[in-house]
Parts: sequence; C-alpha cells; structure tokens
Amino acid sequence: MNLPQVLAAIVEPNQVVAAETQRVLDRKTKPRGSLGRLEFLACQIAGIRGEVRPALPKKAIVVMAGDHGVTAEGVSAYPQEVTRQMVLNFAGGGAAINVLARQAGARLVVVDMGVKDAGNIPGVLDRRVGNGTANMAAGPAMGEDQATAAIEHGVALVEELVSDGVTLLGIGEMGIGNTTSASALVAAYSGEEVEAVTGRGTGVDDAGWAKKVAVIRRALAVNRAAKLSPLGVLAALGGFEIAGLAGVVLGAAALHVPVILDGFIASTAALAAVRIAPAAAGTVLPSHRSVEAGHRRVLERLGVRPILDLDMRLGEGTGAALAMHLVEASLLILRDM
Amino acid sequence: MNLPQVLAAIVEPNQVVAAETQRVLDRKTKPRGSLGRLEFLACQIAGIRGEVRPALPKKAIVVMAGDHGVTAEGVSAYPQEVTRQMVLNFAGGGAAINVLARQAGARLVVVDMGVKDAGNIPGVLDRRVGNGTANMAAGPAMGEDQATAAIEHGVALVEELVSDGVTLLGIGEMGIGNTTSASALVAAYSGEEVEAVTGRGTGVDDAGWAKKVAVIRRALAVNRAAKLSPLGVLAALGGFEIAGLAGVVLGAAALHVPVILDGFIASTAALAAVRIAPAAAGTVLPSHRSVEAGHRRVLERLGVRPILDLDMRLGEGTGAALAMHLVEASLLILRDM
Repeated sequence: MNLPQVLAAIVEPNQVVAAETQRVLDRKTKPRGSLGRLEFLACQIAGIRGEVRPALPKKAIVVMAGDHGVTAEGVSAYPQEVTRQMVLNFAGGGAAINVLARQAGARLVVVDMGVKDAGNIPGVLDRRVGNGTANMAAGPAMGEDQATAAIEHGVALVEELVSDGVTLLGIGEMGIGNTTSASALVAAYSGEEVEAVTGRGTGVDDAGWAKKVAVIRRALAVNRAAKLSPLGVLAALGGFEIAGLAGVVLGAAALHVPVILDGFIASTAALAAVRIAPAAAGTVLPSHRSVEAGHRRVLERLGVRPILDLDMRLGEGTGAALAMHLVEASLLILRDM
Repeated sequence: MNLPQVLAAIVEPNQVVAAETQRVLDRKTKPRGSLGRLEFLACQIAGIRGEVRPALPKKAIVVMAGDHGVTAEGVSAYPQEVTRQMVLNFAGGGAAINVLARQAGARLVVVDMGVKDAGNIPGVLDRRVGNGTANMAAGPAMGEDQATAAIEHGVALVEELVSDGVTLLGIGEMGIGNTTSASALVAAYSGEEVEAVTGRGTGVDDAGWAKKVAVIRRALAVNRAAKLSPLGVLAALGGFEIAGLAGVVLGAAALHVPVILDGFIASTAALAAVRIAPAAAGTVLPSHRSVEAGHRRVLERLGVRPILDLDMRLGEGTGAALAMHLVEASLLILRDM
C-alpha cells in the first residue's frame, strides 16, 4: 500500500467486539474488573483484531535505525558512528533487545532506514532512504518525499510480517541524536514548551541540555514548524527511523495488528502516525514509562498509560519486548481461565 | 527451623556482591544504568543469592488461604465459603493464578492454612492452624502460639522448596475478609489513620466501607494493638494465611531466596515479617501497584517501588506471577548480553 491507500484503510478498533470480550471476562471466576488493565489489554486486542477471542499472538519486534544530521550541532553524548556499531551489535545478537526479544519469543527485525555509511549489513534489512538525515537546525531533516518513502517502507514491512502470520508488533529504534529529533517533533505536535519535552538523552550534562534546547528551538523556527502539516513536521524534524516506525504504526492500524510502544522515540513515531491518521490511535498498546522527560507527555497525547515502571531509557524496543509477556498474559486469561 | 532459629539465620543481602554485579552490567554495550530498575533487580538478586552472576531461577508461587472470623461483622462483599470454593478452583487449575503461574513457568503451591470447613483437598497442602480465625473485633484473631505455628509452617515450606532447588519465590493469598485484616495490620504497624489504609476489598459500597473502618477501629482498640509486639500484632489482627506468608518471607530471607510480593495482603504479610525481623527487608522484590488503598503505604514502608502498574486487585499471587518475567529478564541481561 502507498501512503494514501494505507490512510484509507485505517479504521478504529471494533468496540462491539471489545465489549463482548469484556462480557466473556466478566463471566470468569473473579470479582469483576479485578484484573484491571490486563482485562483492558485483552479487550483492546480483541477490538483491533475484530475477534472476541483472539488467538495467542505471533510476535515480532521491528527495530529501525537511522542517523541524524543534527548531531553536527553536538547534541549527543555519543558520536554518530555508534548508530552503525549498535546495528552491527543487533545483527550479532549481543544487544539488550536480542536478549529480551528471545525471552519474549519474538522475531527481531532490524532495519537500516538510513544509517550513515552503513553499507549492507548481513541480518539487517536495507530500507535506506538516505545516508543520514540533513541537519534540522539548518533546514528540513528530510524532504516530504523521503518521509513518505520511509513511511511506505514501514507499511510494506508490516504487510510482509502479516503475510508471515505475525499478529503482534513491538517497535524500537536506534539513532544517535534521535532524542533531539523526537523532542522537536513532540514540541511541534503538542505545542508544549521545548524545555518540557527535552531530556538528557543518553546522558548529556547541563550545558549539553541547554544546547540541545537551543538547537531544537532553532529547528522549529528555521522550519516554520507551526505552519506545517503533520507529514511536513515529520519530514522537517524527524528521522528516517522515526518516519519508518510511523509507517509501521500506520500499516499495523490498516492491517488490524496491535503495536506495543517502547520509549520516548518510538512513542513519538506513533504520535506522528496518529497526527497523520487519528484513527490509528486505537492500535497502540502501552509498554513502559521511560525516564526521558518528554515521554509522559507523548503518552498522554496518545491516550496511553504505561504498564511497566522500570526507569529504563535504552530504547531498542526493550520496553516493548518486556511488555509482550503482559499482553500475552491478558490473552491467556481470556482463553484459559 | 523454628522461629528463633529462622530469626537468627536472617542476614542482609551481600552489598559487595551486588556492587560487583553492577560493575558487570556497567561493562555491557549500553549507556550506564539505561536499563534502570531491571539492573537494580539483577543486583538485588545477586546480593540475596550471594553470587555475582546468579543462575536463572527455578520458580515457585506459594498461595496460602485462610478464613477470617471478622467476616461475622459483614465486612466483605462475598460470603466466607468463597475462600474454600476458590481453593478448590486453584486445585482444579481454573483460576487466574493457575494461568499466570503456568505462563511464568512457576510451580504453584496452594496451602490451606485454615480455611473454614475445608476438609482435605487433593492438590492442596494441609497446614491448617485452625478452622478460620476468631473475630478480631471481639478479641485476638489468633493466639501468639497459632501465629508462631503458621509462621513456622511457612518457614518449613520454604525449606522444602529450597531443597527441591527453588531459587525464586512469589507469594499470594486467598481469604474472604483478609483486606480487613490487612488494613488493621497496616494501621497498627505504621500508625497511619485507618481510613487511609482501608480500601474497598473485592467491592464493598460506601456504607460497607464505613462499617469496615469502624470494625478495624474496634479491633485495634479491643486488642490494644498499640501496646503489642510485632508478633502480637500479627496474632491479634492477622490471619493464618497472612502469618504463613510472613513465615515464607522469613524463611526465604534466612535461605537467601528472593521473594516477589503481590498485592495489598501479601505485601502486608511481608511488612509483618520485616517488623519481626528488619533484616528481611532486602529479600523482597516488587511486583505491581494494586488499586487497594493501603498498598502504596505498605510498599513505602517496605522501601519497595512497584514495577507493574495494571490496576489489579485480585490477589492470588497474580502480580507476583507477572513480575517473574521481569525478574528473569534482569538475569538474562546479566547472563546473555
């Protein structure tokens, strides 16, 4: 599906089905509602899938990576080449997300959306839209055509996974500089003050944080973000991996597959998707509450409350992987209790 | 071990070992501390076990059941015989905890600590201390000898499980009326106002809640709770299952086995254990934040912050079962990343 097709295909979850699932849960041997949001998760999945008793899921975690021109402004504690090194680490099986995806029984799909000088890495899908984005503090990070291409790669990947039988997705990301991009996106989409949605990323100090805020302000001004469409905002301030994950969320919404969020950046990608197609909001499921400052505000905008509280700030899809167990628990309760 | 022996055997977790585990984690490919409390869990378990790299756990969930004389005051939305019915349900494999223990790969151990008129139920351990407690609003719920016997049953059960190779425990409970008992215990142990630590249990209305508060006040006054020792408080206001679980926590602390808490009542049992033996505090691991009013206050007293936020209020060990996945994730990160 191209972007107009996927937007046309998105419908809200089926509330009649979700309500019937709640009635099934209410007939089980327990005080009504006593499993709390575990029950809500089961009902939400039922509504997304359009089935009162959804089967146990076949799971995949999509981790997209990309580089960010804004790192030229010195906004990150790590050099840009760490993006590529971490993608190699994912491909080699040695990262946190490899461990947690394995524990979750989820297939891990690592996608190069535009890692600088990455070349072709075995075990990594090549969906490169460019060799890193441009510096958003000096102009748009991407053209709208590139943002659209990245989204469509995400949609196509969901189509492939669904045709392989996948029925539950988690999303994660890697990209040095991408908390700066995500904070700029959240400021533009929400109207929040830049300070309120800008955190420490992987660990900048006070001076680094002040510089990051200034760079984001500059990016918002240079790109006249307040005048842009949701897609325009994503292009001007986003990253290839963020746009790709927005595409995953849109594709999942069109194909009735629930998507588990991860931390700040993955959640911001979902916010971009929901700004582009509001009906996609019902497709996203919560995972954890990151320590990154803007995460809470993004989740509020998405209408999602985290189920895990672990003070994590790694990204990579680690929170999504951990939450899969809880999502599956909700379906086991529905099926087996 | 009898009670004096178990108290003498309890030591704090080994902080030198825990710090070495943190150093191992700091050498992994991720920003320092970026896995947040997942790292803390791994270090805490290492400290408890006294091993820098603890093996993956063999897991068991101990669910203890007992009846409460205070139900004569009409404090519960359910009749007392539901305790026995739910124990039969646990034994039959049809309850929520059966589903979630199976998912967690944990052995489920159901213990009758004093369910009214229970008889001998196949698949349920008989550790009956009495045929339900007495009404705490009219005098002590148990004698101190009964509380001690219940604790020692809990300790002995941990000894058996440890000799079977179990290295990680979860605790859960069932007992109509036991939120009333737990609220009374928390008020007595913490000095908090009764209103602040009394919730709706399995669903009483406003009038039922006011009656519950009045009954708890009466129980605190009749038993002169403010003058009692920690064991005396447990005897006067507790239940057989609560004292048994306090024994599980004490036995686990003596035998270097981490114990995952569950909701309000199981956490209150842990608070009783820690009031009796403060060094046991390091042995308890968090699970979820229940909606029951007093749970937050109990967890604060225990120095434990929940990792799951699911608005659950079922008990049975369901939160502990769900948290086992996260605890295990912390050890997988330590071992495999």
